[in-house]
Amino acid sequence: MENTKYVHGYSDREALRLNDQAETLDEIIHNDTIFSKGSFVLEAGCGVGAQTKIIASKNPDSTFISVDLSEASIREAKKMIHSLDIHNVELRQADIYHLPFQDETFDNVIICFVLEHLHNPMEALKEIKRVSKNGGTIIAIEGDHGSTFFYPDSTYAHSAIDCQIQLQKQNGGNSNIGRELYPLFKSVALSDVSVSPRMVYVDASKPQLVEGFIKNTFTAMIEGVGKKAVQQGIIDSSAFEKGINDLYRTSEPDGVFSYTFFKAFGVKENAL
Amino acid sequence: MENTKYVHGYSDREALRLNDQAETLDEIIHNDTIFSKGSFVLEAGCGVGAQTKIIASKNPDSTFISVDLSEASIREAKKMIHSLDIHNVELRQADIYHLPFQDETFDNVIICFVLEHLHNPMEALKEIKRVSKNGGTIIAIEGDHGSTFFYPDSTYAHSAIDCQIQLQKQNGGNSNIGRELYPLFKSVALSDVSVSPRMVYVDASKPQLVEGFIKNTFTAMIEGVGKKAVQQGIIDSSAFEKGINDLYRTSEPDGVFSYTFFKAFGVKENAL
Repeated sequence: MENTKYVHGYSDREALRLNDQAETLDEIIHNDTIFSKGSFVLEAGCGVGAQTKIIASKNPDSTFISVDLSEASIREAKKMIHSLDIHNVELRQADIYHLPFQDETFDNVIICFVLEHLHNPMEALKEIKRVSKNGGTIIAIEGDHGSTFFYPDSTYAHSAIDCQIQLQKQNGGNSNIGRELYPLFKSVALSDVSVSPRMVYVDASKPQLVEGFIKNTFTAMIEGVGKKAVQQGIIDSSAFEKGINDLYRTSEPDGVFSYTFFKAFGVKENAL
Repeated sequence: MENTKYVHGYSDREALRLNDQAETLDEIIHNDTIFSKGSFVLEAGCGVGAQTKIIASKNPDSTFISVDLSEASIREAKKMIHSLDIHNVELRQADIYHLPFQDETFDNVIICFVLEHLHNPMEALKEIKRVSKNGGTIIAIEGDHGSTFFYPDSTYAHSAIDCQIQLQKQNGGNSNIGRELYPLFKSVALSDVSVSPRMVYVDASKPQLVEGFIKNTFTAMIEGVGKKAVQQGIIDSSAFEKGINDLYRTSEPDGVFSYTFFKAFGVKENAL
């Protein structure tokens, strides 16, 4: 696979250096999301198209089908993709556990920030593997909330993050799935499995990530579950508020914040 | 820093562990520890020379003075450096808070796995800065035990790690200092400060790190504080044992382990 070779062409150190220099989350997680010219790619679980627009733009010579269970999300994604004048994506409603495609349809499959929400990520991977061609690369990108650490440290902040982890667990998901990608990929018998951690390390020397990641992505996300967490008695509101304040505190000039995404690569190889 | 306060102790096993750690992590943390030809470099806090041998070998055209507070460690280091036929290092006993060198003596200074043990890392950095020439680069490398996560996850394992963190804190140290290198370097007014995280991500596809890092470095280190932690009532012995078992469990074929070191670079620039 040409794209597989490209992806693994970087040494680990080289990848690290590129990562150190990246100023946006997109660069950190998608710098090597590159498919061979002419590839037919499935994006499984596209939501409103947040990753779709990045991946499709980076691969103008590939054709994408992006699916999501939610009709409403697909409608949103269609509007956005249309407004950006992106022409290499077809958006369709579909169930990831029962994909409306024949066996061995796609050259590659990519799945971003979806497995964390599924009751049965292994079944989803099996279905993805089914529709992937022999020799095709499957890529999964997931976060891991349990990888979060920061300075100044704060037990309140960790408790606030735990609210998100617990609520996601109640819904049958797993916010710490990033670290499990290696065993998951192995469990569905993919070959050449390799997992590349993508640490987002942020200090004041990276103002774009201070705003774009610490504040507007991570802390905003945790803040968003506060009401539900308090309603369900997981935390009391003043403790949650302290936690959120302490997360924002890490965005000050002497603060540091670290979160790790995981990107897994595996190849489908039919048994002989 | 007195020898007795050094949380890891000075046993032979400890010397071996430090050496194992350096050899396993060599590439990850020292790939870019490269000084200009002819540089005169201070290594502050060399212990038994675990990093010294790597740094000196990588920079045959630089001259090193490596110092440590412990006479016994310096003796060990001298033996080892001599046995390896390394000729560009002078080893001397010295106190990092009162270095026996004039202002602006060294082209560069490097300090590895030392700040974590100090009561006052900022004072040590000031002293290091004093003996560094104007325009010289200061490099610090530190771990961060709080950055550790793994699969399968285990609260027992986290409690065992916390024993080490607490014992080190009792001795005036800080096992989570890696994440603080950015504010520390800024606090002593170094210029061009940049911190490069070095994540050691280990799964079964990296058998050398499974053995060399998960088992023989990290878990062995935590195991080493068990007796003291139990004696001090920080944990009961069966819980500690479960924690150690769960750490070893992460080295099995479906296990994953992650730990992050931090490498900070800063430049001394005299005020005009």
